[in-house]
Amino acid sequence: MPGTVQSIERAAAVLRLLAAAPDGLGVADLGNALGLAKTTVHGILRTLHQVGFVEQDHTGAHYHLSDAFGRLGESYLDPNELRSRAINWADSLASRSGEVVRVGRLVEGKVVVVHHVFRPDDSDQDLDVGTTLPPHATALGKAVLAYDASGASRPHKLEAFTTRTIIDPARLAEELAAVRARGWASEFEEYTVELASIAAPIRGLGGLVVGAVGLAGRVERICDSRLRHRADLVTMVRATADAIARDLREDA
Amino acid sequence: MPGTVQSIERAAAVLRLLAAAPDGLGVADLGNALGLAKTTVHGILRTLHQVGFVEQDHTGAHYHLSDAFGRLGESYLDPNELRSRAINWADSLASRSGEVVRVGRLVEGKVVVVHHVFRPDDSDQDLDVGTTLPPHATALGKAVLAYDASGASRPHKLEAFTTRTIIDPARLAEELAAVRARGWASEFEEYTVELASIAAPIRGLGGLVVGAVGLAGRVERICDSRLRHRADLVTMVRATADAIARDLREDA
Repeated sequence: MPGTVQSIERAAAVLRLLAAAPDGLGVADLGNALGLAKTTVHGILRTLHQVGFVEQDHTGAHYHLSDAFGRLGESYLDPNELRSRAINWADSLASRSGEVVRVGRLVEGKVVVVHHVFRPDDSDQDLDVGTTLPPHATALGKAVLAYDASGASRPHKLEAFTTRTIIDPARLAEELAAVRARGWASEFEEYTVELASIAAPIRGLGGLVVGAVGLAGRVERICDSRLRHRADLVTMVRATADAIARDLREDA
Repeated sequence: MPGTVQSIERAAAVLRLLAAAPDGLGVADLGNALGLAKTTVHGILRTLHQVGFVEQDHTGAHYHLSDAFGRLGESYLDPNELRSRAINWADSLASRSGEVVRVGRLVEGKVVVVHHVFRPDDSDQDLDVGTTLPPHATALGKAVLAYDASGASRPHKLEAFTTRTIIDPARLAEELAAVRARGWASEFEEYTVELASIAAPIRGLGGLVVGAVGLAGRVERICDSRLRHRADLVTMVRATADAIARDLREDA
């Protein structure tokens, strides 16, 4: 049939069969019912398992719908998992860039910092894991806000932190479109005077943005002489986001 | 990622985003959030719409999860739709074969006849739409029972109608495996002496068996001189099932 996706039709059929089978079903049961080869069913089940829709029983022989399938609107990724996958990559980004690195996720209109690596010098720094950042005034925030489809997490009131903070909703919408177009976010003295930041989205299964990773530092280090965010840092941040995304997918 | 299906991951991501957006989302919203081209999102949405997981609002601009998505275990196909798609094909099968044709679906352990075409002669016949048939003793029944993954509709007690009715569960399991292996079902004096029948499953989206179509008649017409079900009739029945399946998919 033109324009539809056969594997999605099959996955839907598997979900329906599982929904109708309280005791769960095995690969052979599903293959028999749908007229599909076991390897095909296995690939579908593995994917449905990874996206969190399906679980295996303790023997591994039977599959059933996951409890989480009934609460699809919730985030499928445990923040601890995002943090644990991000740790090594964030450390590496901090040591190569010489800047503070943070990993954050969007929760009810705020960016919650789930991981924080100090700037690798001897300065006094406070750990801000668990604290929140304003999504419209930080690169980390823009990098997640740009992919918030429902707009439910878009801040209602855009608070000004400096004279450069974007407080006009139309301007913010343009800025987020630009983030999507280039795939990374930046900020320049919008949250704190003399500081700038760069961040990139971390994409989970199916392209879902599950968080962002970014660095922040003094304007003269983050930007070049023409006050543009340094391309080498942008490349590092994006590569870090992609590496975390890859780890998340492999361990899913 | 080896062994997973990208389009299913993307469909899962779309479902999660829709679940989190009570007002629905448009194609562009989803494309932006997932970093996918509009045409890709459109194909996913069209498929999710066809399998009944997603609905459009009255303007057609926004998609949201369907109410039926919360009741996945129920049949996704309205029996009236199966009937209306089957009518022309069943008529044609009856006139070409000269036999009674029935379309049935499995409901709580019984085959419910949703469409019935009289044998094209002048004999007295009773319309049996809405009546039920025993799934283990008819070709129509075996053709749906063979694909009942959960076994929830497998009859608990196998009632004998003739001396040929299969009443041993192990024998029935073998018979159903044979149905799956060849893709069609047969019956020989198992429900009524001197009658035989042939049926084939009708597969809906994703391979889900949503019913069966079959013909029944006197043994000497349904079977050849060696009492084997006639190959030309088998071919007609299977082609009819496939034609109904195609119509169901196109109108989904």
